[in-house]
Amino acid sequence: MASDTTPPLIDQMAATTLDDGHNASALWAQFSDRVMIRSIVCRSDGGAGLAGQNVRVGGWVKTGREQGKGSFAFLELNDGSCPANLQVIVEKEVSPLEQLVQTGTCVYVQGQLKEPPAGTKQKVELRVEKVIDVGPVDPAKYPLPKTRLTLEFLRDFVHLRPRTNTISAVARIRNALAYATHTFFQKHGFLYVHTPIITTSDCEGAGELFQVTTLFSDAEKLEKELKQNPPPSESEIEAANLLVKEKGDIISKLKSAKANKEEITAAVSELTIAKDSLARLEERSKLKPGLPQKDGKIDYSRDFFARQAFLTVSGQLQVEGFACALSNVYTFGPTFRAEHSHTSRHLAEFWMVEPEIAFADLKDNMNCAEAYVKFLCQWLLDNCLDDMEFMVKNFDKTAIDRLKMVASTPFERISYTEAVQLLENVTDKKFDNKVEWGIDLASEHERYLSEIIFKKPVIVYNYPKGIKAFYMRLNEDMKTVAAMDVLVPKVGELVGGSQREERYEVIEKRILEAGLPLEPYDWYLDMRRYGTVKHCGFGLGFERMVLFATGIDNIRDVIPFPRYPGRADL
Amino acid sequence: MASDTTPPLIDQMAATTLDDGHNASALWAQFSDRVMIRSIVCRSDGGAGLAGQNVRVGGWVKTGREQGKGSFAFLELNDGSCPANLQVIVEKEVSPLEQLVQTGTCVYVQGQLKEPPAGTKQKVELRVEKVIDVGPVDPAKYPLPKTRLTLEFLRDFVHLRPRTNTISAVARIRNALAYATHTFFQKHGFLYVHTPIITTSDCEGAGELFQVTTLFSDAEKLEKELKQNPPPSESEIEAANLLVKEKGDIISKLKSAKANKEEITAAVSELTIAKDSLARLEERSKLKPGLPQKDGKIDYSRDFFARQAFLTVSGQLQVEGFACALSNVYTFGPTFRAEHSHTSRHLAEFWMVEPEIAFADLKDNMNCAEAYVKFLCQWLLDNCLDDMEFMVKNFDKTAIDRLKMVASTPFERISYTEAVQLLENVTDKKFDNKVEWGIDLASEHERYLSEIIFKKPVIVYNYPKGIKAFYMRLNEDMKTVAAMDVLVPKVGELVGGSQREERYEVIEKRILEAGLPLEPYDWYLDMRRYGTVKHCGFGLGFERMVLFATGIDNIRDVIPFPRYPGRADL
Repeated sequence: MASDTTPPLIDQMAATTLDDGHNASALWAQFSDRVMIRSIVCRSDGGAGLAGQNVRVGGWVKTGREQGKGSFAFLELNDGSCPANLQVIVEKEVSPLEQLVQTGTCVYVQGQLKEPPAGTKQKVELRVEKVIDVGPVDPAKYPLPKTRLTLEFLRDFVHLRPRTNTISAVARIRNALAYATHTFFQKHGFLYVHTPIITTSDCEGAGELFQVTTLFSDAEKLEKELKQNPPPSESEIEAANLLVKEKGDIISKLKSAKANKEEITAAVSELTIAKDSLARLEERSKLKPGLPQKDGKIDYSRDFFARQAFLTVSGQLQVEGFACALSNVYTFGPTFRAEHSHTSRHLAEFWMVEPEIAFADLKDNMNCAEAYVKFLCQWLLDNCLDDMEFMVKNFDKTAIDRLKMVASTPFERISYTEAVQLLENVTDKKFDNKVEWGIDLASEHERYLSEIIFKKPVIVYNYPKGIKAFYMRLNEDMKTVAAMDVLVPKVGELVGGSQREERYEVIEKRILEAGLPLEPYDWYLDMRRYGTVKHCGFGLGFERMVLFATGIDNIRDVIPFPRYPGRADL
Repeated sequence: MASDTTPPLIDQMAATTLDDGHNASALWAQFSDRVMIRSIVCRSDGGAGLAGQNVRVGGWVKTGREQGKGSFAFLELNDGSCPANLQVIVEKEVSPLEQLVQTGTCVYVQGQLKEPPAGTKQKVELRVEKVIDVGPVDPAKYPLPKTRLTLEFLRDFVHLRPRTNTISAVARIRNALAYATHTFFQKHGFLYVHTPIITTSDCEGAGELFQVTTLFSDAEKLEKELKQNPPPSESEIEAANLLVKEKGDIISKLKSAKANKEEITAAVSELTIAKDSLARLEERSKLKPGLPQKDGKIDYSRDFFARQAFLTVSGQLQVEGFACALSNVYTFGPTFRAEHSHTSRHLAEFWMVEPEIAFADLKDNMNCAEAYVKFLCQWLLDNCLDDMEFMVKNFDKTAIDRLKMVASTPFERISYTEAVQLLENVTDKKFDNKVEWGIDLASEHERYLSEIIFKKPVIVYNYPKGIKAFYMRLNEDMKTVAAMDVLVPKVGELVGGSQREERYEVIEKRILEAGLPLEPYDWYLDMRRYGTVKHCGFGLGFERMVLFATGIDNIRDVIPFPRYPGRADL
């Protein structure tokens, strides 16, 4: 479908000419005249086999330099499709070189792929025959010069930072993990369910919620309206009242004077008009600027959803309804916490993957979580090795080894009680948080278990009921619940899940024990009232997984647009 | 990894034993002892080849009846993995039958697959040897009896409605369309980008936004706190002031009396304590119940993000930043409109797919949109035919034909000007909205073009600039912009997109012409200031696509948890 006025392309860039999982980018050439740089330089032959082909490529100049006394220029061109650049050569007869060589310049060019002189690093380069478009850059003003910029500095330029090597590599790894997630669950017969973002049910009574409202804008609109068209004064209403009385009196008089029907009808109609007008004035006189109030409190019945509404903290409770009908489901969407955390591990908006499985117990849950995490790691090794090599070189020497280890090693599985015993016996390290049965494991404990004791991922299961949510299934010991966390080196807890309490009487008791009201959970109890089923599920914090994979330290750098207290750029 | 205490399963349900794209469900047996019903009844042999195998299956009873004078029961069991049921036979020696036969009962059973007697509809049935779990139903209370329920009725039971044939079929079709979306874009080298849900930039100055805030809960917390611990009275502050003065006087006296160093240091330390205490009291005396105000207005600098924040109406502007770095990207996430629309076509929360492509013009955009829509249709024909047959039987006789037509027919492409001419010449229909150059096409016009004139999808391009957004690229005629809409039978506009204005001077002028301030778009202009690139993109309303595919009439029935004015259940 490419336009027919352009020169020969890479012979349809047929998928068969490519390998290494990079044929995807080539398929784009079905729709456009442009070829992605990935489909040239990421072939196993480095593109050598494409020498002689005519192509159009576009990208942004990473580095450019004039050579041969200004007779030609070398440009390192990157289009974000892979970490590698394409070397591009432009002669001064083809285009003025000065504007092309600035870092950040966008160029769209056409030319022939050639084998470069022997002894050079790249396997193919592009000799430009025509410069189709140039998006120039004033190097004095461009915020992202060639010098190395800190990730912290780049957070002030979230709209431009994907042009850097690091943020674009993270974006590709994040993309791969997202697609791997869908692929894994679809492959295993799970249905993707979109749980709601705006919710009126608070998952765990957690509290730190963002509220969603139109009350402020409604109040603003009303205020504007009242300014343009002020509410009636008392004397206006009095006048209108008087008019109604007058019109009524006229009718009485006409009636006692036995006036004819027409006269009375006309008078009645005038009375009706006067009454309507009074009613309108009275209605408007009730309008008050500001937020709607009732009994001294905000009147949420006047809000958009006629009640308080919030941003979801988890899709779990809602997706359980789908699991209790479709058996194997998952949700993958944004979740929110209005916590005033300024740490490198917390965001106000983050993405969660939450599978939920019917006819399954804690063991099935652990099997699924382990297989999923392994699948993600293997996927990156298979599909993102070049980006992972970039991370190893620049951020975390052990990133690839960690993926390989997790993909190939069976996860250790120990009970919470065993975990506490192991940690209590630790002598070579003093923990900041004291270990004893009943505590919630802190990140230092989780990492010690995974990094030092087992040197691999560890699944800890059967936690004390006192530190876990009401919906987790009570074990027969009546002390622990069928919860499980997957702990991994580098980030600690990556996955948290549980078998859900499917017994009506037990969960009702647990809700009350947690000090929660029953009414908001009535719908949730319905799933236990009618055709209840053993089921389980877990949640994986998607940004945690990206941190684990990339070795990046701050969560604000692994999500495209980080939101945290005081900041929500764009 | 299935447990080893259970009886033989379908021999690992190896993927090779299955066909018709249904091997996915079989892979689940790697993690669990349960086999999905889909991997039995959706084989091309209807499951006949599995006769003799021992399996565990779970599901909810669609219909059940006792037979042979109560000696055994037939159950039609569905687990949501496909529209078809598995016929299950339980003898009374195995389990009391009465509680099993109620519609909605959940059963988890183990038994042997058998070939049923000749002449029956199903190719395989399950003879139960053991009932592992039962989740009973009281038929007098169950809200979803066997009788046919209207979709409107079911909207009051969003947590239970996935158990119905219709809502579960829609859920599977929706899942298939979501995965097809990711597959299409990944296949063509697009990177999935998570654009923000909470945003401080309003895409089109559209206005109908939901605000995100913690001001209400902060005010509530403060109010509670002030009740428990009231702010200091004036006299308390006065006393604290006096104390500071006293302590200061003491120091002066000590100094003039040339007291020793220790005495003075002790006095200074007492003064410091008194000053701190005063400062704390003064700080607390400023606390006022209610929302924070400044100059008579809400003080949003005290809100979570230190400014007003909203739910996104589109990820386009933000994803453009990624396209201007990574070339081919897409976003797929929830978007929001606080419109008071009570129609069958509008939701307050809905999902959008928004690809964005650099080095591409309107023609590339149309190529991509057409290929994507065709891909979705073909995917359903290949992967969801059983669910589509259900829709044809129960909702829309033409649903499958429509998919086939769209998947196989080249879309018509006409300019807006041509479209208006065609509509002006229509004589067999009187439109509610007058047609003339310059109007925005109404749904009736869009459907007439697609359903009556061309009888296939139509792409209308080059719309008058007056009716389109500022970011659409101005054409050389200076009257139209490079916008395009894909119109399809049944729903009208399915896709809307445009080439974006990449010229700095032009877009700056267009923003001002639209009466918008420049400052909030400064970051957006940066993409034109530095290395600008021709780029384009489009948006597909995901629920519209589900409506188009299923033939369902009301958008509230094609999203799991519909949100609209006055309603946000769960």
